[in-house]
Formats: sequence, C-alpha cells, structure tokens
Amino acid sequence: MSDKFEPKFDAAGLLTAVVVDVSDNSVRMVAFMDREALERTRETGLAHFHSRSRGALWLKGETSGNTLAVEEILVDCDQDAVVLRCTPRGPTCHTGAESCFYRRLEGDRLVAQGD
Amino acid sequence: MSDKFEPKFDAAGLLTAVVVDVSDNSVRMVAFMDREALERTRETGLAHFHSRSRGALWLKGETSGNTLAVEEILVDCDQDAVVLRCTPRGPTCHTGAESCFYRRLEGDRLVAQGD
Repeated sequence: MSDKFEPKFDAAGLLTAVVVDVSDNSVRMVAFMDREALERTRETGLAHFHSRSRGALWLKGETSGNTLAVEEILVDCDQDAVVLRCTPRGPTCHTGAESCFYRRLEGDRLVAQGD
Repeated sequence: MSDKFEPKFDAAGLLTAVVVDVSDNSVRMVAFMDREALERTRETGLAHFHSRSRGALWLKGETSGNTLAVEEILVDCDQDAVVLRCTPRGPTCHTGAESCFYRRLEGDRLVAQGD
C-alpha cells in the first residue's frame, strides 16, 4: 500500500512532531514543524522545528551541538503528526536530561525518573 | 527532585499528548488535552482528549471500545506536553492499525510499515 504524502498543517501552519530515539524507542521531545522546518529536515537529515515562541525556524542543537539525525519519519493516519526516529547526539533536553520527559506525574508532583 | 505539576496550556487551552504502548514503547497516537481531558484521564485511568474538530471532550474508545488504560504520565521540561504510557485495548487507529503511525515516509509516498 502506498499513498501520497500530503501533510495537513493546522490553522497555525504547524504539525506535531514527536522525536523518538531509535535505539530504545523512548520519546525525547515534542515540537512543531511548519512546511519550511519539514523541508529543511528532509534536505539536511537533521531535525528542524518551528519555534512557536520565537516564530522562527529552529535547527535543534544549533547552539548546543545536540542535534538529532533523522533515520526515519513515520506519518499518522490523518497526516497531521509525525514521528521522527532519530539518533540523538548528546542529551536532547535543554536541562541536560537525555529526554525532555524526565519526570513522571505522581499526585500533583513531578518526580524525576529513577527517583 | 520533586516539582509542582503546573501544566502549561497553549493559547487554545491545549497541551500535546503522545500515547505510547508500555509493552514496547511504540508511539500509538498523538492528540491534545485541555484541562478537562487531563482531569478526566486522571480520575478514570482511561485516556481522554479534546477533539479539535468537534470542540468536545473525547474518551478514546468510547465508540470502538478500543480504550487506553493509562499506566504512567510523563511530563516534559516546560510542562506543555505529556507522554501517556498506556496499555491499549485493541488497535488504536480508526483504520484498524495498531498505531496511527503505521506508515513511513519514502520520497513523497507513504509506505505501510512492513511493506
């Protein structure tokens, strides 16, 4: 089965991108891509996003060096979300954690994984 | 380390939710939660979302029976996205596929996983 890729950007021109580490399938981060970010990602093989706060294209790791090499892109049924299966270079989170999802919810508290 | 849970809903009152199968860490679907969906999910243990198209609370599996039992909620660094680690009942995608992300991008085509 083969279908045409026709990404469905939302009213803000964005789709949701979930970054997964290919080595263990763990979710590293969630961000948004506009058409430009998607194109740059596919051209360069490095994950690019659209920063909603800065309103600008953002190469993940541009400052930190902690880039994400995209090995595979999965697309969901209605084509408004993608999973980027990546080989991360260094930690992904700006806090220094491997993943932005380094805490679990317990009651009304966030507890670091492993604690 | 413990921090207070203070979810950061966006301008539309939503945060992004990534559903992961606890058995193999695979991403099953991506959806959005408003405060109500988050509360209902935590009260019932079943994943609820906010349907952007219908503008309404949505219990995943309400019609199909293919619910998602939430085992753990991970929260990201800036608290605007969550990972719901779930035990899925039946396939998650409305197409009947286990995951909504059942296709990978190759060129400008979507190819079913396994093909």
